Parts: sequence; C-alpha cells; structure tokens
Amino acid sequence: MDGHLDPRRYSTVDLIRRKRDGGQWSPDEARWIIEAYTAGFIPDEQMSALAMAVFFRGMSAAEIDPWTAAMIDGGVRLDYSDLGRPTVDKHSTGGVGDKITLVLTPLVAACGVAVPQLSGRGLGHTGGTLDKLESIPGWRGDLSSAQVRSQLAEVGGAIVAAGPDLAPADKKLYALRDVTGTVESIPLIASSIMAKKIAEGTEALVLDVKVGSGAFMKDLAEARELARTMVRIGTGAGVRTVALLSDMSTPLGLTAGNALEVREAVEVLAGGGPPDVVELTLALAAEMLAAVGSDADPAEVLSSGRAMDRWRRLIRAQGGDPDAPLPSALETDVVTAPTSGVLDRLDAMAVGLAAWHLGAGRVRKEDDVQAAAGVELHAKPGDLVRAGDPLLTLHTDTPERFAAARAALDDAVRIVEPGAASTRPPLVQDRVE
Amino acid sequence: MDGHLDPRRYSTVDLIRRKRDGGQWSPDEARWIIEAYTAGFIPDEQMSALAMAVFFRGMSAAEIDPWTAAMIDGGVRLDYSDLGRPTVDKHSTGGVGDKITLVLTPLVAACGVAVPQLSGRGLGHTGGTLDKLESIPGWRGDLSSAQVRSQLAEVGGAIVAAGPDLAPADKKLYALRDVTGTVESIPLIASSIMAKKIAEGTEALVLDVKVGSGAFMKDLAEARELARTMVRIGTGAGVRTVALLSDMSTPLGLTAGNALEVREAVEVLAGGGPPDVVELTLALAAEMLAAVGSDADPAEVLSSGRAMDRWRRLIRAQGGDPDAPLPSALETDVVTAPTSGVLDRLDAMAVGLAAWHLGAGRVRKEDDVQAAAGVELHAKPGDLVRAGDPLLTLHTDTPERFAAARAALDDAVRIVEPGAASTRPPLVQDRVE
Repeated sequence: MDGHLDPRRYSTVDLIRRKRDGGQWSPDEARWIIEAYTAGFIPDEQMSALAMAVFFRGMSAAEIDPWTAAMIDGGVRLDYSDLGRPTVDKHSTGGVGDKITLVLTPLVAACGVAVPQLSGRGLGHTGGTLDKLESIPGWRGDLSSAQVRSQLAEVGGAIVAAGPDLAPADKKLYALRDVTGTVESIPLIASSIMAKKIAEGTEALVLDVKVGSGAFMKDLAEARELARTMVRIGTGAGVRTVALLSDMSTPLGLTAGNALEVREAVEVLAGGGPPDVVELTLALAAEMLAAVGSDADPAEVLSSGRAMDRWRRLIRAQGGDPDAPLPSALETDVVTAPTSGVLDRLDAMAVGLAAWHLGAGRVRKEDDVQAAAGVELHAKPGDLVRAGDPLLTLHTDTPERFAAARAALDDAVRIVEPGAASTRPPLVQDRVE
Repeated sequence: MDGHLDPRRYSTVDLIRRKRDGGQWSPDEARWIIEAYTAGFIPDEQMSALAMAVFFRGMSAAEIDPWTAAMIDGGVRLDYSDLGRPTVDKHSTGGVGDKITLVLTPLVAACGVAVPQLSGRGLGHTGGTLDKLESIPGWRGDLSSAQVRSQLAEVGGAIVAAGPDLAPADKKLYALRDVTGTVESIPLIASSIMAKKIAEGTEALVLDVKVGSGAFMKDLAEARELARTMVRIGTGAGVRTVALLSDMSTPLGLTAGNALEVREAVEVLAGGGPPDVVELTLALAAEMLAAVGSDADPAEVLSSGRAMDRWRRLIRAQGGDPDAPLPSALETDVVTAPTSGVLDRLDAMAVGLAAWHLGAGRVRKEDDVQAAAGVELHAKPGDLVRAGDPLLTLHTDTPERFAAARAALDDAVRIVEPGAASTRPPLVQDRVE
C-alpha cells in the first residue's frame, strides 16, 4: 500500500462513467480502484459495473500495470532469490486434456531448476491440475509458503494452490467477475494471472496461451493480444516472461479427465505417451530452461528416467502414493466411428463438455469432481478410422450422465474421404516475448 | 406478479453474458429479471453489471415492454376512470430553467382536465419541480394516493412526488444505476419514466423531451429515439402518449433556480413572463388537451386569469401560501458582457452547473437545496448587448460559491458582431406520436 488510501480521493461513479465513455484512468486512479475495492470502500455493485465497462472498453498498459501492481502489493510477494538455484513457473490459460504441468514440473526440476508451480482447479469444460493430482490417493496441494520453500529446496518442484495471502484483491475480484459475466476480458484475465504469478516470486515465467475451440481464446489474434499483455506485465515487473501460443482445436493427448490424465502423464514420464503431449512438454521445458540460462537437455532428462524419479519424489513429498492404483470408473460407454475415412475433426470444446457432463468437472466452485470420469480418445485428427471402430470411450461412476455426454459430442466428429482432409495446424503456433 | 417467480428459473450470469454478447432476452426472461431483482434473488452486483451491458447493447421493444410491465405490476396501478373528467400528465426529461410544470398544471386544470402531475427532485445541473415549489412557505408534495384523488376532484390538479408503492422496482433500480454509472441508457431511462407514469393511472401523457447542451440528450437523433421508445411503451400500455422535442441549448426563460423560477412562473400565470416559457407552455397544453379530446383554448384561459386562480388553489391545497414572499438570496454577483454585439450563445449546461454550484441543486440525494440560489439572465441568445451591461446575476446565501459558479460559466457566453450571429433553433423541434 502507498499509505495514501483515502475513500474520498476519487469518485467511483465518475471513474466508471469515464471508462464507460472510452476515457482513460490515470495510473494513480487505476491503483486506487484496486486498493479501495480491497478495503471495501468500493462496493461490489460498483466494481461489477466497472468490470463490465472494462469488458467493453479495455484497459491501456498505463492502466493495467498499476492495477496489477496494486493487486500484488495488497498481499505478500514471495522471494526465492536465496534458494541457490533459479526459479521458473509455467502457466496455461486452460484447455482440454492439458496434463502438461504434471510432466513439465518434475522434468524441469530434474534439470536443476526450481519450479514453484501455482495451479488451479477446473471450472466448466477445462480441467484443473489440482483436481487431476487429487485423484492420486493421499496427494494434497494446499501447502504453506514455508512448506513450498522447503520442498523447492529438497525436491526442486512443488505443485500448489495459491495461498490466501497471494494477491487477495484478485481472489475477491475473480469471485465477483465469475457471477457478473465479466470473466472474459483480456486485461482482467491478464492482470489476474500475472498478479498471482508475480507475487509468487518466480524469476521467470513461461505462458502457454491456448487458441482454438477448446480454449478461452478462439482465434490467434485474440490469443496473441492476451499473450502480449501478459508478457508486458511480467517483464515490467522484473519477471522474465515468454509465451507460446499452442493449438487447442482438439484435445491434447488421448485423455480428458482427472485420473485418466494422470495415467497418461505417467506414460510420458516413462518415455512413451502421445507425441503431441511430448512435443509441447519439451517445447515449454526448453523455454523454461532458456529463460533461466540453463543448458540442460530436457529430451535427454525425460528419456533417462530422471524426470520420472523426480515425479515420484514430488508426489510423495505432497502426501501422495505414486504406486497406488488410480481410481477407475464404474461404467464405460464406447462411441464408434459412423463411417470410414480420415478423422478430420475432433472438437476440443465438445470433448471438454462431455468430460464435464461425465463428472470430471464442476458446475459450482464448491462441487466435488469424480476422479475417474472423463473421455478417452482412440483416434486423433489425421488418423484413418473404419466404420464401427471405437472412437471415444466415456468413463463415469454415474451412467445416467452418458446421454448428456453423447449429446455434447453431436457434431464433434468429422470423418472425410482420404485426400479431403484439412491441413492440421501446427501444435505451437507462435511465440511472444 | 405472475405467480411463477422462481429464483432458479433462469441463470442470471447467463442472462448477463447473453446481453453482453449482443443477444436478446425472451419476454419472460426480461420480466423475470425485474421480478427477481425486486424480490432480492438477483443481487445488486449482478444487476449493475447487467445494467452496464444494457448501456452498451440496448434493449429491443420485445425486451423493454415486459421489463416495464414487470415494474408496474410490482406496485399499485392507480385508476382515475371514476373521476368524472379526463386525466393527463406531462413529463419533461429535464433541463435548465424548466419551470413549465408550474404553469402548465394549473392551466390545464383550469381547462377542465385533471392533471395528476408526478414530479421529481433535481440532481446535478437540472432542477426539480418539487424543489422549486418547496421554496413557497408551507408547500409540500408528499401526498397520499387518497389525498391526490380528492385534490384532483376538488382542484383539478396536484403536483406530487411518486409514492413508495408506485413502481418500487424502479426506485430500487434507479438508486443502483445512480451509483454505478448506468443512468444514461435510453431503454433504462424510458422504462423508468414510463413505469411510473403508467402506474400513476393517467389516461394520456405528453412528453417534453429536451435536446441540447443542457439536456440529457445532446442531439436530435438520440432525443427522437428516446421519445419514440417512450411513446411506444405508453401507447402499448393503453396510455395515449405524444412527445414534443424542445430546445435545451440555452435555459428556458430568464431564471434557473428554485424561488427564482417560481417567481417567473407566477409572472407567466399573470399574463407576462418570457416569451419562450409562454410558447412552450401553450404548445404542451394544446397537446395535453388534444390528447383527451378537449377543445378548450389554453391561451384564452391563461390570459383570463383562470389559470392564476387555479394556481393559488393548488398551492393552498398543498399547504402553501401563494401570497407569502418568496425567499431572496443574501448575496448577489453580477456577470457583465465582456464586449458589445449580439449574444450568440448562452450555454444551458454551464448556467445549470453555475446554479448548482450556487446551491440550487444537490450533490447527493440527501442534500438540502438553497431556495433562493440560482442564476438570473438579463439577455437571451439573439439579444443585442453592450460591453459592461449586466448579463447574468448570480444569487446565493453562501458567497464563497461565487468563484465556482463563475468558473462554470467560462466559455458559456459568446458575443459576435451583428450579422455574424447563428440561426437560432426553433423552440419545438419535432413531434413524435
């Protein structure tokens, strides 16, 4: 805090009207809004109208930076500079089948770089890393800052929920945005992500900005704007930040769910797994290592088994049993290919919604998720399929949900004549730094 | 109420997002929003975000009509059909120096038509009829419905504040819009005005939609859209509704303030007064009389003194003494013409703000106003002035406010060479029915 917080310093309704009419806030006004909202001087009904005006009018860099800084300054800012090794974190904007963090954290830790990996829970069609890991018996992500610090020193990596003292203004504002239709705003998304990541104390940050039907950003131009905004905020706050834009038109890998994705991540750590998961993991690992000046070779570390060793230590350090069997679903239902040809499209959003209907995701934040629910893919776009072959297996403990999941998959699949298939987009579409 | 109100009938956040993204609500959804907000199922923070989305996206007729109907149905709807004479009301969208209601109500009542005149208080630079009349010692506007009814039977007119049981949803929503920067939305303005006017039970309604610097609507196209929206809502609800669009680029008459405007209204009732006030009063009276099929001649009734008699009865019926001296300000300050020439511009907004700074208006709803504060004009656009001649007299009981009032008047006045003067706009610019 600046010590200048005065509830009468600005008129909130004037600030709302100015933004509404396309005007700008001064840096001091932008900072005051966050401070006054956190302190309760700006009530929720004014903040939600202001957020909706931001949805329509955006924020300039001169507004976003002090706004984000005020969020960070309202809580603790961690510092790992005495850890004796560099720190780097990764953030994904959320997709379907995105189990990359599970492989990437032990892999980069095994390369000698500390990874204080802040993670979230799923809401809607996108999964959450914490939900996935909680399908491992005993595992928990709610570590204290002191526990994170000692685990980083001992294991080199930790996958944890953001504590309540990290950017508390963001927690309050996010909960408000969630119920007022003001989540989908590039400056609000960027400041929310970056406030937590900067406060977390990482030296470097690699962003995986998803683009496509299963992502929040449906087109490359929007995704690039979000990436540029986040990279600018991070760099300005002294965190080396780089972003990859990666395809989310179809799920990553062959699973979307919680235990299903853990199983697939373990396959990758064992040297196997789907090629797209391996490719994106190595691309992000290379960026993370480059950002802190490490010349380790992540492909070599992955194939050597050292990443798997680190995974087992990380899971054990957080109370989990890496050898315990993962839960499997009580019921399965197989969706077959209606015709023969090339699988041209398998829509990420539809698969994400199907997994959500099956119980892998939650409707409200307080809901539980089913550890074993989800969707297993038997083919990916570009593969040849024959009529009647299994295309997807749906997993759930509550078979009355199969109908809703199948309905969500209507129009998700397109099979074409060989030769008529679309060009598949590259997995990594762009890089922003 | 429809009896179908169910807090889980619709998802409020989905309705907000749909409006935000340019979609439409069904009539039932629009009605449910008002019912659920009134009942407290939709909290203020969702309603303010929804109102801001309406500010940017508007509402169609198919949304505004059930929205307005739900506001009316949430309170009482009065009925004067057993009064034995037709009823008609006038509404002005608010301007500077607009004392028309003070003359018009007794004038139309004297023509044999009942006028249940709902009025408001000033906020910001526009004055309010209730504030003006309260400068008459003893006068009060907070009559019960029964008192209004008996006064309409006995005197033919009543100038009153809307009671708490008239469109209570509008009161709740207006208070929210006032603090969340969501006042300035044509569908929200139109539904707010029309819900009260329709609930009030008038058979016919004449709208005076102001256009120009001192009005809420700065240009004719916007004013016409507001007029058309209100006329459509009124007509659809069975109230014969017509609108005049009148100029508000310069104040009406020669005074802006409370007691100052009462004095000028009495001059008009006595057969004198500024020509523009007389012209607009007679134009609106003609519309009101035509709307209920009366063939009375308002100019004759005004010059006969019968309107003045009715004024005195109306003031007395509401506790006021029409013979009591009006308060006069403790201090005055004269603004003189800087050069000689034709007064080409005397800006309505600037004069309104000056009157507000002098104490005629209020900053917050709970503030008091000064009865005697305001601005007196010694010339109107088109008049010849000489350097050093008095142009305006500022009135206040708190002379420390003169500086702010003079600052508000910077750039308000333009004096040009004779022959270089602009064409003056007609007072009545359009008619919508």
